[in-house]
Amino acid sequence: MFKRLLDYNNGEELETVVLIKNSQLRHTKNDKLYLALMFGDSSGEIRGNYWDANNQDAATFNTGTIVELNGKREEYHGRPQIKIYSLRVVGPQEGYDLNQFIKSAPEKIKDMKEEINKYVFDILNPTWNRIVQYLLKKWGKRFFDYPAGKSNHHAVRGGLAYHTLSMLRDAKGISDNYPQVNRSLLYAGCILHDMGKVLELTGPAATQYTTEGNLIGHLVLIDEQIMMAAQNLKIDTESEDLLLLRHMVLSHHGKYEYGSPKLPALLEAEILHRIDDLDATVYAVTNALQHTKPGTFTEPLMGEDNKRYYRPKKDEALDKSKPLE
Amino acid sequence: MFKRLLDYNNGEELETVVLIKNSQLRHTKNDKLYLALMFGDSSGEIRGNYWDANNQDAATFNTGTIVELNGKREEYHGRPQIKIYSLRVVGPQEGYDLNQFIKSAPEKIKDMKEEINKYVFDILNPTWNRIVQYLLKKWGKRFFDYPAGKSNHHAVRGGLAYHTLSMLRDAKGISDNYPQVNRSLLYAGCILHDMGKVLELTGPAATQYTTEGNLIGHLVLIDEQIMMAAQNLKIDTESEDLLLLRHMVLSHHGKYEYGSPKLPALLEAEILHRIDDLDATVYAVTNALQHTKPGTFTEPLMGEDNKRYYRPKKDEALDKSKPLE
Amino acid sequence: MFKRLLDYNNGEELETVVLIKNSQLRHTKNDKLYLALMFGDSSGEIRGNYWDANNQDAATFNTGTIVELNGKREEYHGRPQIKIYSLRVVGPQEGYDLNQFIKSAPEKIKDMKEEINKYVFDILNPTWNRIVQYLLKKWGKRFFDYPAGKSNHHAVRGGLAYHTLSMLRDAKGISDNYPQVNRSLLYAGCILHDMGKVLELTGPAATQYTTEGNLIGHLVLIDEQIMMAAQNLKIDTESEDLLLLRHMVLSHHGKYEYGSPKLPALLEAEILHRIDDLDATVYAVTNALQHTKPGTFTEPLMGEDNKRYYRPKKDEALDKSKPLE
Amino acid sequence: MFKRLLDYNNGEELETVVLIKNSQLRHTKNDKLYLALMFGDSSGEIRGNYWDANNQDAATFNTGTIVELNGKREEYHGRPQIKIYSLRVVGPQEGYDLNQFIKSAPEKIKDMKEEINKYVFDILNPTWNRIVQYLLKKWGKRFFDYPAGKSNHHAVRGGLAYHTLSMLRDAKGISDNYPQVNRSLLYAGCILHDMGKVLELTGPAATQYTTEGNLIGHLVLIDEQIMMAAQNLKIDTESEDLLLLRHMVLSHHGKYEYGSPKLPALLEAEILHRIDDLDATVYAVTNALQHTKPGTFTEPLMGEDNKRYYRPKKDEALDKSKPLE
Amino acid sequence: MFKRLLDYNNGEELETVVLIKNSQLRHTKNDKLYLALMFGDSSGEIRGNYWDANNQDAATFNTGTIVELNGKREEYHGRPQIKIYSLRVVGPQEGYDLNQFIKSAPEKIKDMKEEINKYVFDILNPTWNRIVQYLLKKWGKRFFDYPAGKSNHHAVRGGLAYHTLSMLRDAKGISDNYPQVNRSLLYAGCILHDMGKVLELTGPAATQYTTEGNLIGHLVLIDEQIMMAAQNLKIDTESEDLLLLRHMVLSHHGKYEYGSPKLPALLEAEILHRIDDLDATVYAVTNALQHTKPGTFTEPLMGEDNKRYYRPKKDEALDKSKPLE
Amino acid sequence: MFKRLLDYNNGEELETVVLIKNSQLRHTKNDKLYLALMFGDSSGEIRGNYWDANNQDAATFNTGTIVELNGKREEYHGRPQIKIYSLRVVGPQEGYDLNQFIKSAPEKIKDMKEEINKYVFDILNPTWNRIVQYLLKKWGKRFFDYPAGKSNHHAVRGGLAYHTLSMLRDAKGISDNYPQVNRSLLYAGCILHDMGKVLELTGPAATQYTTEGNLIGHLVLIDEQIMMAAQNLKIDTESEDLLLLRHMVLSHHGKYEYGSPKLPALLEAEILHRIDDLDATVYAVTNALQHTKPGTFTEPLMGEDNKRYYRPKKDEALDKSKPLE
Repeated sequence: MFKRLLDYNNGEELETVVLIKNSQLRHTKNDKLYLALMFGDSSGEIRGNYWDANNQDAATFNTGTIVELNGKREEYHGRPQIKIYSLRVVGPQEGYDLNQFIKSAPEKIKDMKEEINKYVFDILNPTWNRIVQYLLKKWGKRFFDYPAGKSNHHAVRGGLAYHTLSMLRDAKGISDNYPQVNRSLLYAGCILHDMGKVLELTGPAATQYTTEGNLIGHLVLIDEQIMMAAQNLKIDTESEDLLLLRHMVLSHHGKYEYGSPKLPALLEAEILHRIDDLDATVYAVTNALQHTKPGTFTEPLMGEDNKRYYRPKKDEALDKSKPLE
Repeated sequence: MFKRLLDYNNGEELETVVLIKNSQLRHTKNDKLYLALMFGDSSGEIRGNYWDANNQDAATFNTGTIVELNGKREEYHGRPQIKIYSLRVVGPQEGYDLNQFIKSAPEKIKDMKEEINKYVFDILNPTWNRIVQYLLKKWGKRFFDYPAGKSNHHAVRGGLAYHTLSMLRDAKGISDNYPQVNRSLLYAGCILHDMGKVLELTGPAATQYTTEGNLIGHLVLIDEQIMMAAQNLKIDTESEDLLLLRHMVLSHHGKYEYGSPKLPALLEAEILHRIDDLDATVYAVTNALQHTKPGTFTEPLMGEDNKRYYRPKKDEALDKSKPLE
Repeated sequence: MFKRLLDYNNGEELETVVLIKNSQLRHTKNDKLYLALMFGDSSGEIRGNYWDANNQDAATFNTGTIVELNGKREEYHGRPQIKIYSLRVVGPQEGYDLNQFIKSAPEKIKDMKEEINKYVFDILNPTWNRIVQYLLKKWGKRFFDYPAGKSNHHAVRGGLAYHTLSMLRDAKGISDNYPQVNRSLLYAGCILHDMGKVLELTGPAATQYTTEGNLIGHLVLIDEQIMMAAQNLKIDTESEDLLLLRHMVLSHHGKYEYGSPKLPALLEAEILHRIDDLDATVYAVTNALQHTKPGTFTEPLMGEDNKRYYRPKKDEALDKSKPLE
Repeated sequence: MFKRLLDYNNGEELETVVLIKNSQLRHTKNDKLYLALMFGDSSGEIRGNYWDANNQDAATFNTGTIVELNGKREEYHGRPQIKIYSLRVVGPQEGYDLNQFIKSAPEKIKDMKEEINKYVFDILNPTWNRIVQYLLKKWGKRFFDYPAGKSNHHAVRGGLAYHTLSMLRDAKGISDNYPQVNRSLLYAGCILHDMGKVLELTGPAATQYTTEGNLIGHLVLIDEQIMMAAQNLKIDTESEDLLLLRHMVLSHHGKYEYGSPKLPALLEAEILHRIDDLDATVYAVTNALQHTKPGTFTEPLMGEDNKRYYRPKKDEALDKSKPLE
Repeated sequence: MFKRLLDYNNGEELETVVLIKNSQLRHTKNDKLYLALMFGDSSGEIRGNYWDANNQDAATFNTGTIVELNGKREEYHGRPQIKIYSLRVVGPQEGYDLNQFIKSAPEKIKDMKEEINKYVFDILNPTWNRIVQYLLKKWGKRFFDYPAGKSNHHAVRGGLAYHTLSMLRDAKGISDNYPQVNRSLLYAGCILHDMGKVLELTGPAATQYTTEGNLIGHLVLIDEQIMMAAQNLKIDTESEDLLLLRHMVLSHHGKYEYGSPKLPALLEAEILHRIDDLDATVYAVTNALQHTKPGTFTEPLMGEDNKRYYRPKKDEALDKSKPLE
Repeated sequence: MFKRLLDYNNGEELETVVLIKNSQLRHTKNDKLYLALMFGDSSGEIRGNYWDANNQDAATFNTGTIVELNGKREEYHGRPQIKIYSLRVVGPQEGYDLNQFIKSAPEKIKDMKEEINKYVFDILNPTWNRIVQYLLKKWGKRFFDYPAGKSNHHAVRGGLAYHTLSMLRDAKGISDNYPQVNRSLLYAGCILHDMGKVLELTGPAATQYTTEGNLIGHLVLIDEQIMMAAQNLKIDTESEDLLLLRHMVLSHHGKYEYGSPKLPALLEAEILHRIDDLDATVYAVTNALQHTKPGTFTEPLMGEDNKRYYRPKKDEALDKSKPLE
């Protein structure tokens, strides 16, 4: 197996297979073209410039291409970069797969599957249980593979499932504290709330919005899936049980301005929205703090109203936490 | 046939069958109960108090009940009211129907049907044409019977169809002016945009929101109907044609804060939203001006950001216009 | 001991000691004055009118007075009320105490104290631990007696402690899920965040804002207490530990428009704000749902952006839950 | 006559007279100055760099200068550009006029004049008719020459008249649909609403805001013109007819935040505002879509709340439509 | 001369001529009509009910009528009221004038005129000076008679001039502190900024908005007056001096949402807006505090974002201040 | 003494000691590093590039370093710059001080001290007088040295005191105009309102926010100082006098969104907020206008809602005003 991209030290020469995560044709002021590239694999990302490029090169080495990279790791302006000796496109017959080159969620897919299934087991209402199982089966392959978004949070392979699982754990604690909560409905809502992203996004690598993602959105996309599942399962599409579940997913963004066609009008819908928000924020803030020096502030976080967060000088819990990205 | 409610003059005694459009049990300060009633039929509405009522009376003569009313029309405090001699609940076997007592849209249902069908004929795209025909057939009975809302605008029997038709006429003028507009898509959007109200509202009399109206809303309800229609018609649910139509209805409120899960992202969706708004506003403002003295302002209109409109001292077009409600 | 107010059945005569929770002098249209009274004790509240009142009576039987009430429970307009035979002010020598007549939080003060102390034990940072202990000691009597607000949520005796404890339980679940969270800081923040209400409010009975509550507010009031505690405990007022704790309480309303002088800029501050919000919402929504018929919506909840919540037709968890107020 | 700028093919040498639509002095990283120029004539625009420039060149070849351009059309980085051989300022005696080099509205001025005059003929109220005719005469030359704005929409020669005419066509369709509309007032409002732009803007070429445009704005500028016209025409400045017309122009931006000193308070004012908005949006969206590949989204449109619009993969109406800019 | 309304003590019988400031026909629950009247003269206001009224009485004794009142001052429910013995409409021949019955600004008109003239003398720019003098002459009678508004602040006879003068005094202090301020422009702006209210309002008694007030508004109304004054004075309507003055009045509300068609874009326009706001707020808050008990808060002030203000327990400056209304 | 930075003419060689106000390591397109430097002393600022730099140079010549600069003043692209011959870090033993190189407020510290003391003398209430004196003594050194902000306004040495003094002068004029104002409270509020900035900012040179500035903010920081001062002076921390003063500083930002934990609820707090705003705006607008050509607009001012201000073609007062920065 190849040594991975971040396994090389400064000054060391490297030969490895990587993904071009971003490719932009630029030109220097004295009119020479070059490609500004971002290479990545599951170990992380490094930049490199491909000099004296032409339009042909730009087409060959574009975003999402897997390449064999020969070069040398250098330090430039305090940041690591690759001095490129050569680039070669890797053919489909060489057996590489995009997913190899993408960072993954911090837990194993197998473990996440198992734990989520335990939560499914605790959905006692048969309508919700059957629909959740049906859709997990139908979309499961993508569900455990896709990220939860393009950039703000959980933008890693398996991020969608990881975000869902983390919310289920929160949901458990909250259901324990408040016995008036309908635990089955809350769990079903957690599992389905973002599942529409398997239709809204293109996948874990070089993630983009699909056209139906842009024109319909994951809230309505999963609502439509629930309706069609109900038809296939011979569940009455007018039953209150189904209505409640549809409302859970349609209202989970919590506010009109975030694209919810309805505001949460169930105790469980209100909680679902808040857990969703909380888990996304904890992820994004933690990730930013992990890249920030103690005693200083993060950059403004776009997904958090451009707020900046402070990393205390001494913060044992954070120091010992596992890096997210 | 009975003389209608507004056909009686001041001081005249009356005996007629009317609908109780609103009933509230109140008590005087010296501790007597009475029912404050609003009677109505297709000619309009008048108030009347039923004195010395008890809880039993309140249950008997509640909102939505059809009654035989004996009494006398009087003037009280400048406003007409009925002095009630007696009230009797009319039984189902007497052959009355709620709809008789409700004001209707200013055009005949038969005429509206015919004209709308002409517009359907001009939807040249087969996917949109078939779905529109399918849903018009499935929901047509309600579609030509329901109001377009509880109160703000077109809150009359047949108001939903009337609003739709008026928008189609606007759509025609606009499509003529701008040849770049996809006329078929715009017409299909007009016809379907509010059709979900047949599920969102309870009907033309004593109109309320249904539970699914409150929890799902008419935008998503009609979107689900479109998807199920497509399945039944063997239309590919992933086709771009279907995607465009779904986007039309899902975005027609134009802004997130009005419950659109997506903002208009098609030229035709943008126009649909604006025609919808325009027609509702023209209706509401006209209706208010028709009840306002020349040279003065209307009351603040709730559906129009509480704005007040001025009726010019001399305004021939308005003076000659047919009253809406 | 007296039978309590809600222990009497309809039609039964009663003689009991109650608190006047609200008293308003009104007049009938034929110019007679009466007092509209709200009686209450720990079992709940009932209205009653004191007829033919004068200004003297209004002064005698004003809000916050403890009285002996003779009368009869009746049903009026579907709601229970007391027909008053006589009212007598109870003197201070008779040994009654305002607090007897106020509804209490659903858990016992003794139990809450014990459980909160366990959380204090888990605050491992000595600065935070000492300040929390110091202030719990200084304000503990009020802390376990006061409500968490005038009306929106936890407006019961002991409500402040109950809200705090419920948040600590949420905090525990969340700290377990996210190991990067500084548990000590989060617990300390939970315990202190609303403690300034012991200065902002007048107490559990007939709760009002104090002048310093209105002009300074509980966020800054507790911040000042923390600074003075630090001085007395010889803790460096400039230390980062103290700074973090001050930031927790000053930012816990989460947004400027809710009176936070700073937005949360610590992961733990962000979480504190969200737990606070969540617990208040769960309480308010649950309380409203418990007073709502299955299959219908609550009234608009003022503290929740005037949203209305739906109580499902069948909802076992809610049905079995302990009534909050 | 010269071949026009966009009539040359890639690789072809050219010699033509063009307008410098934008000129910026920039410097390369190795400290050489050059002028980044945008050339344009009525056929469109192309960029070109003038190397080794100095401050003198920047002053000579600045924005708004007409020049004789010798060079060669090339492709650079996928976009056409001109490799400049020489530039020469064209003197006033050579008979060129700025307006030759500006794109024009898609209809002929003569045709637009004629059609607008027909609408004037339908303004039956003599006060409005005389004022419209007076101001069309006074400002007509500019009115048929100016754009409707600097950039967002109708930013072409004759754009102001074109926008006005397109609105009149919409107004006709709407007046036909709603007989309660005062057609004369609506037409007069359409014609005058933006006429203040002849004072607010500097003209069709290199359009800027005038100082009075910035400090007073076109709504109030045309209102002042109406008042002065009335004086000259001996029309009572206090008459209701004049008041209504002044209100039409002063309220046509529809909302305070867009600089309307009053909100629309006439049915016709409400419609005027909406037609104005509709026509501007249809223009801007169409223009953007015409520059967008089928199956993709436009860039965010600044004048449309930064929304992006989708061009369907197959869209006959749009495909066949005449390009706007 | 008559003793004035507030000169009578409790229990004393009175016979005086007063203005009916508000008249409303109401009915008791046992169906009797009465008029709820508010009497007023320059000493203040007291309520009184006219029992057993009919529609005729309502027409006779309506808002704005001057009447001879016989009755007795009583205390009801802690508030003074008049028990009415008889009411008689005072005829025009009896020589009363509405203005006698209206509260006036706390300074004498003659003094205000004189002081304002001194400020006019300090407007050194001849364009501004001549226009200010011209308009003061044209509208002076109303200017020193009208209030500055219907209710929020300076709603007294002469209130417009008083508000203007108070602003001029502020303007003087500020011009002294900041020598970069163009004192002449600021003074001219102060004097003219609200002068359009002589057209926007109906006058000092029973103040209402005129139709042109509602449809055009005082900012544009005074702008039009300035333009017409310039024409009559042969001042160039395009001169920068005139432009600056027009901008001052058009922008003085400071924000679009308050109906300014332009935002302040001159240092002096910015200051004018702030002085205007400051003086209105000081007036409204002072007036409210003067009617509030020490140690308590005012009611929410509508014109001040519904804020409530605290009157300190001991506040010598306020205690000694002259009552405003 | 050295000639100062702006004392050299174009083309002249220079040798002087200056502060590096900003240092950024950049690289040219052909991969060479250079330092883009901003030099400054009390005479103003000029840019210069240090070519062929390395990381070591970047560390040596970073922001805030005092250096001896040899070079030549040149004109580049219309703007002055320094061609650098050599740079040498000046050692601490050479006796330079950061403050020498910073622009100062336009009045002398000694004069400002004296004048502020006169205002202190007019604070007649002993509680406020003693606290003001105590804190002026404790923080006076910084108070007369610090700027009032990082950038928007009064960002000069002594700017905090200058802003305070200018507000006191406004406060005097306003107190003279409105006798109901508690002058002592207003003066005390002016002096203390921004004094927390001595803790919030790092000082006059290369001003940054401190961590406690970011996490607590100057409003609460000075509130804490007032409380601790009261303790040390044996002033009752619960007294109304103290409460009023605390409210003044805590509410002076006037709106929640600017970080006031409470809105102004005293007449004097309302005025304090407005004077603060007024003085900051006059400073920022004047400063921008002084750098703008007559007849043109300033750049959008960030601290003034991005508004642009117009400098009239002829504006004597501004022309003669002393430059602020």
